[in-house]
Amino acid sequence: MIITEAVIPAGEGRGVRVAAGQLLDVIDLEGSQVADLVAYDADNPEEYLSPAHTAAVNTSLRLKVGHSVYSNHRNPLLTILRDDVGEHDIVVPCCDPERYAYSYGVTEHRNCLNNLRQARDLLGLGLVVRGENAWNVFMHNRVTADGEVVTDPATHPAGSTMTLRAERDLVVLISACPQDLSPCNNYDPTAMRFVVRTEENGR
Amino acid sequence: MIITEAVIPAGEGRGVRVAAGQLLDVIDLEGSQVADLVAYDADNPEEYLSPAHTAAVNTSLRLKVGHSVYSNHRNPLLTILRDDVGEHDIVVPCCDPERYAYSYGVTEHRNCLNNLRQARDLLGLGLVVRGENAWNVFMHNRVTADGEVVTDPATHPAGSTMTLRAERDLVVLISACPQDLSPCNNYDPTAMRFVVRTEENGR
Repeated sequence: MIITEAVIPAGEGRGVRVAAGQLLDVIDLEGSQVADLVAYDADNPEEYLSPAHTAAVNTSLRLKVGHSVYSNHRNPLLTILRDDVGEHDIVVPCCDPERYAYSYGVTEHRNCLNNLRQARDLLGLGLVVRGENAWNVFMHNRVTADGEVVTDPATHPAGSTMTLRAERDLVVLISACPQDLSPCNNYDPTAMRFVVRTEENGR
Repeated sequence: MIITEAVIPAGEGRGVRVAAGQLLDVIDLEGSQVADLVAYDADNPEEYLSPAHTAAVNTSLRLKVGHSVYSNHRNPLLTILRDDVGEHDIVVPCCDPERYAYSYGVTEHRNCLNNLRQARDLLGLGLVVRGENAWNVFMHNRVTADGEVVTDPATHPAGSTMTLRAERDLVVLISACPQDLSPCNNYDPTAMRFVVRTEENGR
């Protein structure tokens, strides 16, 4: 049963509450698109998704089906049930005003940090959004043997979907990444969609 | 000229203010010891050292002499002038109560997160310490080709030193990591020392 759904317009942010046990689909409508995702315990926003703790608990930078992402208290928040892409980044922060200013000399560029704050504001919440705690969903980043962090062009097709199960009541904020100056979204940022549903309604 | 110095007893935390341009030596007194370090802009603690932003700006997980570590606003906070060890981790958080509880079933174990808070309290400051923003100095972590995060035993000798130059006025908190259940400190946590000095007094 679908509980709620929304399209995240290209380069914008939207958020949603997901109750424990519910499923969250993150769907790339047109392909080659990255979503930046932050999550908070709905009852205690001081417990939040931490990519660093996720890497530590999984002892891996790679997220696969069956893995969870973890909070700053090392508790599972979301478990990956389906992943059509299998590429993620949990090392670098989301893009922010300084990314565009310092790397490209561009000011006033849309960015995931402010998109996530837009998503928060649209929910009327007072959460603190920190860029280092964003999970870069579907981002084709890799670490070379020398430790270099390389962003490859995203190549996944339209309709690529990740399904997550909420392990507790959460607030989830998602940005359709507006990065058009790196291969991150293959230079063409597009819309995303999310669906919150109960398990009975299989996709 | 030495401005201040302190021994950080084994498994404890201490902090210090470092003014722009001053040098901070972090010294492993007995060898094979990791220090966890967090840093804040002294005038605006909402700008703080972020390992994730550091990885993004350097496009690398490896920190080398000449590299800086960066803030959550992508500004350089500390620059590495000397590094006798050349091994660091900027991927995983510092150890915390849940690390010992969940991985080893041990409660009441000393941990870097609370050590950093001890260091803060000894300075009488109200900073918020977040484990995901700790730089794990001298930690022999590596990422395999499969993305696995592996902790090798620390092997550096007594007296191993890192020298950092403060790029602005900072508060720096350091924990002598108390981890004795992984190879992190070669199963023998020991004391660290730090020195704040002006450049004239070469080591």
